[in-house]
This record gives sequence, C-alpha cells and structure tokens, in this order.
Amino acid sequence: MPVDLSALAQPADTRIVLVVMDGLGGYADASRGTELEEATTPNLDALAAEGAVGLVEPVGPGVTPGSGPGHLALFGYDPLEYELGRGALSAAGLEVELKPGDVAARGNLATLDAAGNVVDRRAGRIADDEAAEVVGALAAGVHLHGATVSFHPEAQHRVLVVLRGQGLDPRVSDTDPQSTGVPPCRVEALVPGSERTADLVNELSDQVRSLLAGRPKANALLLRGFDSHRELPSMQQRFGLTPAAVAVYPMYRGIARLVGMEVLPKAADLDGQLALLGEHWDRFDFFFLHHKPTDSAGEDGDFARKVAAIEALDAAVPALRALGPDVIVVSGDHATPTQMAAHSWHPVPALVWAERVGRDSVDRFGERWCAAGGLGLRPTRDLLPIALACAGRLRKYGA
Amino acid sequence: MPVDLSALAQPADTRIVLVVMDGLGGYADASRGTELEEATTPNLDALAAEGAVGLVEPVGPGVTPGSGPGHLALFGYDPLEYELGRGALSAAGLEVELKPGDVAARGNLATLDAAGNVVDRRAGRIADDEAAEVVGALAAGVHLHGATVSFHPEAQHRVLVVLRGQGLDPRVSDTDPQSTGVPPCRVEALVPGSERTADLVNELSDQVRSLLAGRPKANALLLRGFDSHRELPSMQQRFGLTPAAVAVYPMYRGIARLVGMEVLPKAADLDGQLALLGEHWDRFDFFFLHHKPTDSAGEDGDFARKVAAIEALDAAVPALRALGPDVIVVSGDHATPTQMAAHSWHPVPALVWAERVGRDSVDRFGERWCAAGGLGLRPTRDLLPIALACAGRLRKYGA
Repeated sequence: MPVDLSALAQPADTRIVLVVMDGLGGYADASRGTELEEATTPNLDALAAEGAVGLVEPVGPGVTPGSGPGHLALFGYDPLEYELGRGALSAAGLEVELKPGDVAARGNLATLDAAGNVVDRRAGRIADDEAAEVVGALAAGVHLHGATVSFHPEAQHRVLVVLRGQGLDPRVSDTDPQSTGVPPCRVEALVPGSERTADLVNELSDQVRSLLAGRPKANALLLRGFDSHRELPSMQQRFGLTPAAVAVYPMYRGIARLVGMEVLPKAADLDGQLALLGEHWDRFDFFFLHHKPTDSAGEDGDFARKVAAIEALDAAVPALRALGPDVIVVSGDHATPTQMAAHSWHPVPALVWAERVGRDSVDRFGERWCAAGGLGLRPTRDLLPIALACAGRLRKYGA
Repeated sequence: MPVDLSALAQPADTRIVLVVMDGLGGYADASRGTELEEATTPNLDALAAEGAVGLVEPVGPGVTPGSGPGHLALFGYDPLEYELGRGALSAAGLEVELKPGDVAARGNLATLDAAGNVVDRRAGRIADDEAAEVVGALAAGVHLHGATVSFHPEAQHRVLVVLRGQGLDPRVSDTDPQSTGVPPCRVEALVPGSERTADLVNELSDQVRSLLAGRPKANALLLRGFDSHRELPSMQQRFGLTPAAVAVYPMYRGIARLVGMEVLPKAADLDGQLALLGEHWDRFDFFFLHHKPTDSAGEDGDFARKVAAIEALDAAVPALRALGPDVIVVSGDHATPTQMAAHSWHPVPALVWAERVGRDSVDRFGERWCAAGGLGLRPTRDLLPIALACAGRLRKYGA
C-alpha cells in the first residue's frame, strides 16, 4: 500500500525541475563504459557531487518500458496502476482529444501480397505525404453503421484510428499479426459485450482493403492497442503541483497533458527549451524538461551521437542552475543502450540535487557510480516524492 | 504481499536487542558529514565491521515519519497498514487505557483574544503546574449529556481529552484551526452517524470557553486528531516473541505497550537502562532499548549535542555486548538532521550484528558508509524479519 501523498502535500514557494534525458540508460561491456560514463559531463558531475545519485527501474526488474510507463513513473505514477494504451498515447501525442466512450487504436499502413498475407508491416516506411494521401482516401471512403471513424496520420506508416459512438468497448483483439507471411487477424471480443465493437472493426478493415486494393505499398491497415479515454488524476490533485512541460516531440507533450501539465510552446532546440523555462519560471512550480536526442541516437545504435546528446544536455545545466531551482532531478524514462539499438530493462541513472537532499560519496554521474549512491536502487516513481520532500512540499506522516 | 511471519515463527533460545537512537539519521552537506559520521563511535563501528549495515526508510520515499509510524516500522509493522492517531498515541504515552468505544483527542490550551480569534495556539507554552490547575478546573466543571469526559495533562499546553459513552464516533473534524488570527473551528461530522459526537465536542468547547473566560493565557482548548481505541496484533502473535521495552519517555513506553511489550520500570539514564536489561535478561527474548537524546538534540539543531548523544550510546555498547545477546539491531525511527531541527524523510542508517548475519565490506557506522552496506536500502520494517532470521526464529518457507 503506497503512501497517499495528496494527504501530505503542502504548499511551498519552491521550484522543481525534472530533466528527462530520453533513453538515458546504457550498459558497460568488455570494450567500454556506458554512454553516460564515457561522456564528458562536468556540470552533471557537479550536480552529482553536490547531491545524491542512484539507479531507478521504471516498471520492474527485467521489464523494458515503453515511453508511456517510463514517463508516468518519472511523474510519480505507478505505471502498473495507471496504464496508458497505445491508442491513448498516440491520441495524446497528436493532440487528438479522446472523449469518454471513444475507442482509439494505433494503426500501421501495411503491404499485403496477392494471397492476402502481410509482406511488410510498415508499407516500406511510406513517406509522410504519401501516407497522408492514403489516409485522406480512408477518411473519405470508410463509413460504419452506428459509429463514426476518424483517421489521423502520425509519421510514416503510423495512423491513429478513433471510433466514436454509443456502447463501444476497447476490449477487443488486434488485427496486427505482428509478423509477416500470415494474413491480418480477425478481431475478436475479449469480454462479453464487446462483440459489436469487434464487428465494427472487422467491417472497417474490410472497407479499408477494398478502398486500397491495387495500391502497391499501402493496401491494408493493421490495428493494435485498442484503448479508451482514461482520466488520470492530475499532478495538481496528487501532489499539489502546478506543472509545466517543455518538450519538443508530440508524444511527450501528450503524456504531459494527460497528467495535467500545461504544455509550453514548442521550442526548436535545447536552448529554446531553456529560454521557455525562464520565460514561464514564475507561473509554475514544477517543470518537465524533455531531451529526446539521447534516445534517438540510442535507437540508431550510434554511440558517439548518444554521447554527444548527453554532452549537449550537460552544457545546458549552467543556464538551468542560473534560474535558481530548488530541486533538480535528472534521469531517463528507460535505457536505450546503443549495443541494442532499442529500449531495454537496464536500470537508469538518477540524480537529485537540492540544498537538503544530503550528499552521498559519489561525485560523478554514471551507471556504475550511481550504483554506490545514496539514493540506492529503487523504482523510478520514488523520485518524485523525494523531490517533493526536498522542496519542502510534504508534511509529516503520523504523530 | 508480505510474508506471513507468524506462520514461520519458531522458538529458539536466543535474544534480540533493538537499539533505537531516536532521530538518528542526518545528512551531509558542503561543510560536514552527518552527526553519526562525525561522531567517534569505536563500539558501533566494531558492530558494523562484524555485522552488516544499510539504510532504511520508515514510511516511504520522501515521507517524514512521526514517532508512531517510525517505531511501528522498527517493530516490524507496516506503518501504512497499522495507523496510530494522535489521540491513541497520547493516551499510550500517558498510560491512559483507551477502551473500545472511547474517543480521544490531542488538546492544546490556547489563548483567544476578545474577538474570539486564536492569538497563541500554545497559551504561551504555559508551565506544567499552571496547566494542571487549568485542567483541574475543566475536569470539575465540564459535564456532557450521555458521555463522560476526562482531561489528562501532558506537558505544557498539551492535554489529552477522552470521551467515553455509547455510540461515539471519532470521525469528526478538528477544532484547532492550525493558525492564528481566526476563531476555533466548529466540529463537523465527517461521516453519517458521527453527528452526535460532533455536537458533544462543540458543547464541550463551549463549556471550556465559559469556564476559562477571563484567564489571560489559557482561555480555550483546541482539539485535533480524534481517534478511537485500536487493537494492534501483538509481537507475540505476529512473531512469537516475548518482548520488553526499556524506555524513559512516556510516548515510547506507550507505543511499546500497544504492540504487547512489557514495559520495564523507568530508568534515570542509559546506565540505568542497561542495568534494567541485565536484571530482566532471562525473562524476555526481545528488548527494545530507546535512546531519546539524539532526537532532542536534533530537534534543537544542536550538532555537538547530537554527536555527544550518539557517543554516549556508543559507550554503552560494551555493557550491552557483555549480556550476551544473539542479535543486536541499531537504527533510528526517523532522521532528525540538526540542519533542519525537525524530523525528516532522509533514510536512516541501520546495523544488524549477529553471528550469522554475514559480514559486508563496511566497517564504520554512518550514512554514507551504510549506502554501500550489505543490507542495502530498504523499508525499516524489513529489519525485524532479518533479526528474527539471525536469531534462528524463522523456519523455512515452502518445500
């Protein structure tokens, strides 16, 4: 049973900055240290020396987190208690508002062969403009009985599909078979009562096949992660914070919005993000600063570029400190080791800097040094209560 | 889901001593180490070298514990599962037995101005004898319909109030507004069915105001933390122990009684406490030794005095070891860093010494060394099962 922090929250004239280097974590092997260990990070090292470090696990031991659970954990939400489906995340990222009762799914434009088997689950990573044209054809041509359907292009082959109508239920199976050489799956009801939704989605898939028949690349739409609108309690409600997000990429802006953050305008780069922080410094007491290039480089398996992305963040730390925050937290939403070119389960380094956090004996920021840090090894969701405590925002529990 | 230790408990001819240095934890800053790190503690360091150390969190990350939850955790009780209200704690501390159905609250003698607004929530920290006289006047003058009320002076302005009668319900709001310049609050029922209790408390407050009218300092009684008698399972039931408490201060004697400890007579000082331990050594298999001066010095922000209080406990360790305990646990119920002069959320150092605990690589007792210890970072309530195991008192789980 976790502590109900909303009952302990108290106001204070303090500011917390949560710096998220997306996919920060890595692992050392025989040939070299982690990206963070090998990076030259004098400013992060200074924060580590003046503060406390540790390692955090976003979801659980051995579990590789998606971006949704990884960020929810950083925002102090247990990602096992607060689930975000792919559909809800995509909608949030596209700034498509899901209403209660809506059902959303993540779609992939895909290529089927003449026998109806999947040849390419991503339609050759179709170009954005080509995909937009296909999605336009679907929007004009698909019509369901008793529900409206809307199609929202994301990037390349990815499309958000939203069903709106009475009595819809997201508990239906996927059409995406997650492999090639087999046909798309027929949707089935996973609970009694979702049969009608399953029928509607099968009808939708059939209409899409007819409309796209003859196209060489994108001639089908694979759907997965059916999800409905879910209301998350806000960070205001849970922690008494007035939070703002400074993020460039849509998905992270979307997740921030789901927990009640005000999402500040898009900046072009890290300098722009820092400038935004300064402009809005007086209006908020919690800032989520999202840094994407660490993850992008990790996903590409580009060690040097991930190191450079970490060093770019390091170079922004003096400007951040100049704003006068009371608490700085630096961590990541998951590991993206360049050896794997993918998200992974490895614990993520974390750092809490504050007047009263208590110095540990570690003076460098990096996975193997963090293992000896005063914060220990803990769930990622512990970071927010520690930050609140350091900011004087939690009263005593019990007499 | 925690292990049910009562199902694993087995008898053994072994003795465990739990040494609690109240408010032991501290934090290092730019200028110095923690109180424990800076103290000269050859005997505690020897226990650390021969045993295992770690850091413990009494309630949860970032949460500052009161004395009640901090001690319950040390006694192996999840403080979120077993809550103790202020009224129950005060009653325990005063050795006032609450019966099932009783409702208790913590009262403050306070000063109101002519307009009825609170000027001083503590009546100028009124002297004990003056407070006793006021409480005597209340005991003689307050009469309620359908309930008896008793007043028990604690120290200074603090008074325990106990209502006894049929159908009382503690789920009512406080009269203490927790600030000055405003009148005391009227009590309201927080659930259907507690209206009569709310009315009784409002009637009580009115009578107190009439009786104390004209007194310059103590002319009102602010009430908070209404609570009822709650039965905790005893340490005998939960762990098969026959426990005794050697504590000087009433509140800790009271908490010990609530978990089924026999509370040994009051000793004047640490030497007296050690002597009591020796006298009663054969009758018990678990001893809770409470050392208050560390917390008192911490609350006063007195670094040197907290260091001295730790060194005083260190000096008592040889006498403790001479008794031949099988397991010694040394920790604290929470941190009280002298920089804050208050309880805090910081993890508390912990040490388990026993023949079979397994030595780690740490040979000094202090926060930053404990961060590298074999016990790791864990909830405080884990210490008791580890102590039981080291004492041969837990059988194997499963086949």
